[in-house]
Amino acid sequence: MIRVLVWNEFHHEQKHEHIRAIYPEGIHGCIRDFLKTNEDLQVTTATIFDENIGLSDELLENTDVLLWWGHVRHKDVPDEWVEKIVRRVNEGMGFIGLHSAHHSKIFKALMGTPCNLQWRESGDHERLWNIAPNHPVMKGIPEYFELDGEETYGERFDIPRPDELLMIGWYSGGEVFRSVCTFTRGIGRILYIQPGHETFPTFHNQYIQKLITNGVYWAAPNCRVQLTGPHSVVSPEDRRKNGDQPTDYIR
Amino acid sequence: MIRVLVWNEFHHEQKHEHIRAIYPEGIHGCIRDFLKTNEDLQVTTATIFDENIGLSDELLENTDVLLWWGHVRHKDVPDEWVEKIVRRVNEGMGFIGLHSAHHSKIFKALMGTPCNLQWRESGDHERLWNIAPNHPVMKGIPEYFELDGEETYGERFDIPRPDELLMIGWYSGGEVFRSVCTFTRGIGRILYIQPGHETFPTFHNQYIQKLITNGVYWAAPNCRVQLTGPHSVVSPEDRRKNGDQPTDYIR
Amino acid sequence: MIRVLVWNEFHHEQKHEHIRAIYPEGIHGCIRDFLKTNEDLQVTTATIFDENIGLSDELLENTDVLLWWGHVRHKDVPDEWVEKIVRRVNEGMGFIGLHSAHHSKIFKALMGTPCNLQWRESGDHERLWNIAPNHPVMKGIPEYFELDGEETYGERFDIPRPDELLMIGWYSGGEVFRSVCTFTRGIGRILYIQPGHETFPTFHNQYIQKLITNGVYWAAPNCRVQLTGPHSVVSPEDRRKNGDQPTDYIR
Amino acid sequence: MIRVLVWNEFHHEQKHEHIRAIYPEGIHGCIRDFLKTNEDLQVTTATIFDENIGLSDELLENTDVLLWWGHVRHKDVPDEWVEKIVRRVNEGMGFIGLHSAHHSKIFKALMGTPCNLQWRESGDHERLWNIAPNHPVMKGIPEYFELDGEETYGERFDIPRPDELLMIGWYSGGEVFRSVCTFTRGIGRILYIQPGHETFPTFHNQYIQKLITNGVYWAAPNCRVQLTGPHSVVSPEDRRKNGDQPTDYIR
Repeated sequence: MIRVLVWNEFHHEQKHEHIRAIYPEGIHGCIRDFLKTNEDLQVTTATIFDENIGLSDELLENTDVLLWWGHVRHKDVPDEWVEKIVRRVNEGMGFIGLHSAHHSKIFKALMGTPCNLQWRESGDHERLWNIAPNHPVMKGIPEYFELDGEETYGERFDIPRPDELLMIGWYSGGEVFRSVCTFTRGIGRILYIQPGHETFPTFHNQYIQKLITNGVYWAAPNCRVQLTGPHSVVSPEDRRKNGDQPTDYIR
Repeated sequence: MIRVLVWNEFHHEQKHEHIRAIYPEGIHGCIRDFLKTNEDLQVTTATIFDENIGLSDELLENTDVLLWWGHVRHKDVPDEWVEKIVRRVNEGMGFIGLHSAHHSKIFKALMGTPCNLQWRESGDHERLWNIAPNHPVMKGIPEYFELDGEETYGERFDIPRPDELLMIGWYSGGEVFRSVCTFTRGIGRILYIQPGHETFPTFHNQYIQKLITNGVYWAAPNCRVQLTGPHSVVSPEDRRKNGDQPTDYIR
Repeated sequence: MIRVLVWNEFHHEQKHEHIRAIYPEGIHGCIRDFLKTNEDLQVTTATIFDENIGLSDELLENTDVLLWWGHVRHKDVPDEWVEKIVRRVNEGMGFIGLHSAHHSKIFKALMGTPCNLQWRESGDHERLWNIAPNHPVMKGIPEYFELDGEETYGERFDIPRPDELLMIGWYSGGEVFRSVCTFTRGIGRILYIQPGHETFPTFHNQYIQKLITNGVYWAAPNCRVQLTGPHSVVSPEDRRKNGDQPTDYIR
Repeated sequence: MIRVLVWNEFHHEQKHEHIRAIYPEGIHGCIRDFLKTNEDLQVTTATIFDENIGLSDELLENTDVLLWWGHVRHKDVPDEWVEKIVRRVNEGMGFIGLHSAHHSKIFKALMGTPCNLQWRESGDHERLWNIAPNHPVMKGIPEYFELDGEETYGERFDIPRPDELLMIGWYSGGEVFRSVCTFTRGIGRILYIQPGHETFPTFHNQYIQKLITNGVYWAAPNCRVQLTGPHSVVSPEDRRKNGDQPTDYIR
C-alpha cells in the first residue's frame, strides 16, 4: 500500500465559478478520484483551508508520496512546514510538483534555484513529446499527446540539470519547455509535471492521469534514511578486523 | 513473466577444477538457480559451447533481459550476433554486463568506448559503498558490503558518463571503481556490475544476488520501439487539423 | 594553436546548382572561412572526393577537433577510418557532428545507438531556445534565435542521454528537437548541432557560426590518453610504500 | 580579469598555534598567494572577523568567483547573506566550496539537501583518482595523487547527482568519496573540493593548488542573467510576424 497525500491550494476553484465547473471538488478531488481507482494506493487530500494547512507531523511521517498544486498563495505556506517537507523528501518521501508548484517554496528549496520561467496565457495548444518511452513514468504514453489549451510555460526554465528529461512541450505560440522531468534530493525522488493550469480540464486528460499515476508508483520509496552526518570513531577496515557490523543509516 | 537469458562463456569452469568447484554448473547455472526462486522470472541459459553460441533470432526476440558473462573468448562472439544484440537493446531489451563483460564486443559497442580499466589479481578484498540507497536496483543493499576476495578493477574505467552511479568500490590495495552503474541505449536499460571474477564465489554472495535480481526487474522493458527514422510527410500541426493520429513507433 | 579539420561530403554542392549558389566553395569552405578569422585556429578541409577521403594517419594524429558533415554517402566512408576516428576521439580529439552527421557511421559508433529521428522537408521555420546560457559553447547566443528555413528534425532523437542539453529546437509544424547537445566518449568531447541542411544558408547565420566557433574551442583537448587497459602488478599502496610513481596514462 | 573573493572562517588558524604554523596568514592567505601568481586573477579575501563578515553588496556584485571555507561557525553567517550569495550564484557567479563548506548554509541551500557525510579524524592517507582527465578543472592532474594526511570524508555524501564527477577519493581506513564534483544552479557553476582540513598542509599541495586555480577559470561566468519570471504578452510567433526582438534576459 502506497500512502499518497494530494495537497492543493484550492483557491481558484472556490473563487471562480468557471473553474469550479471544471473541478467541482477541487483539483485535489479530481486527482484523488482517479488515483483511488488503484487499490494499492491509499489517498488523502489536504488544502490550505484545512487546519494547519492540512498537515501534521504524523501525516507527513505516514506519507510515501506528496503531490503539490499551489499558485497564488505560496507565501502562506509556513516556512516551518516547508522545512519539514524538504526534510521528509530527503529522507525518502516522493514529491510530485504540479504546474505552478514550480514557484512553491518547497520546490524552490529542493532545487536551489528561483525556478523562474516565461509564461503566457493566450489559449495556445500544447503538444508534449515523449523523450523517454521506456521510463516507468512514461508507461502507456504515446509518441506525443496534445492539450487543446494550456497556460504557456516557456524556457529557460530555471531548474538544475534534471536527472531525466521525459517530455518536451511544444506550444503553438513558439515556446518549448522541459515539461516532465525528474530529480533526486537526498534519496527522495521528485517529479515535475508542467501541465495543469486551473482554467483547463488538464487533470481530466487520460495521459496526464497516466503520468501522475505512474509517477506515484515511481516516486514511492524503497527505503528511508536517517539524515545524520555520523562521526565514525572506528574505520571500516578496523570494523572488518573486529568482525563488527556497520551501523546502517538505511532502514 | 519476465523472460531472462543468462549467457556465459563457460570456459574457466570447464577448464579449471578449482573454478568448477565454486561453480559446478557454471556461473550461468549459479545465476539461473538464484533467479529461478522468483516465480515471475522465466530463466534460460546459453553458453559459447552451445550451437550458434546458444543464440537464435527467436530466442533474442523473446528475451526481456540478457545477462552476459565473458572473459577470454570475446573475439569468438560473431559480429553478426553483436549487432543483433545491440539492436535488441536499442529496441528495449535490458542488458546486464557482469564483471569482465566490460570488454565484450557488445558492451563496447553500446558504450562507444574501449571500456578499458586497470586490473590486478592479488587477493585484495573489496568494499562496495551504496551511493543510491533508494534506487530500485539497490533495494535491500546496506550502506556497504564486503567481498573477501575479488579481482581488482581500478579507475579510470573508460565508460561514458553513467546515467546513474549506484556503488563505488574500494580495494585494499588502493584503487577505487565505479562498480555498479547504469546506462540507456535506445530505450534499453543497461546495468554494469563489476564483481564476479571466476576464481571467487562472488555469485554466491547474498548482496550480489540481490543486485542481479533487482537489476533484472529494473532492466525489463515497459515497451518496445521500432528502430526507424521515419520520413514524415504530414506535419503534426497538419495531422491535428485533419484529426489524424500519429503512427506511433512505440508498441 | 588549435588544429581543426573540417570534413564535408561535398556531394550536394557539386551536383545541384541551387545548393552551389549557397555554398560556392562547399559547406566546408564556408565553415573554414569563418573559423579562419580566429588567429589561433589552424583550419584544414577534406572531402569524400579527396584521395583516401582526405584522411591520413598523420592528419588524424595532428587534429585537435574534427567537424563532420555527411548525408547521402555515409556508407562510402570506410570502416577502417570510422574505427580510427572513433579511437582518436576516445584518446581526446574533439568531434563536432553537423546536421545529417547524426547518421554517419562515426556518430552512431560513438553513441551506441541508431541515432534515428523524424524528419520533414517542408519549409518550416525553426526557433532555437538557449537552455544553458553560461555554457562555453553558448557564449554570445541570445535567449533564442530563429532560422527562416531548415529541415525539420523531430524527436524522438535516438541518442543516449546527453551530458548537457544546450538548445531545444521548435518547428512551426509542431516538432521539438534536442538541437545542440554534448557527450563525452573516452576523454573526447563531442558536440552535436542539428541545423545545417544543404538547401538553406544556415552556415552563413551569425549564431550558427558562433556555436561552431565556440564549439571548436570547447572541444579542443587539454590532454591525451593512452587507450590501454594496463595490467598492474604492483598495487598503488605498494607503490606508495616503495616510493614509486604511477606510470601515468595521461599525456 | 577574473575577480575572485576568497572567504575563510579564520577561526582555527587564530585559535590553535599548530594550525597557525601551517597557515600563518590563514587558509585564505595561502589560497590568495597561489592564485595571485596568475596575472589575470584579481584576488580579494574576507573572513568572519571582518566587518559584516567581510561582505558588501558592491563586493558581491563585483565578484566573478567566490571560494568558501567554513567549519565551526556556519551558523554565524547571517541568512540575509546566504540568500544574497545564493542569488548571485544563480545569476552566474561561480562558487567553489572547500572541504567543510559542504555544511555551510550556502552550499546546503544550493544543493537542496542536508549534505551530510561520514567523517573520521585518524590520520588516514588519501589517494584521489582522476575520473575525467580532459575536464578543464583537471588540467595537469595525473592519474592519481596522494595526500599523506587528510580528514576522512566518507560516502554516502548526501548531495544531488553531480553534473560531473571529477575525482574519487580512497582512504586507507576503507572509505571512498566523490571528492571533486560539479553542479550548476541557475547559470552559476559550482565546484566542490573535499580535501582541505585545517590541521593538514593540504592547500600547500601542488595538485590541490592546480585544482583550485583551474576551478576559478572554469567557474568564472561568460554572462549574467536576470532572475525574473517574465510575463510575456506577445508570443514569439507574433514577435516574429511583427519583426520584434525578444527582450533578452541574458547580459
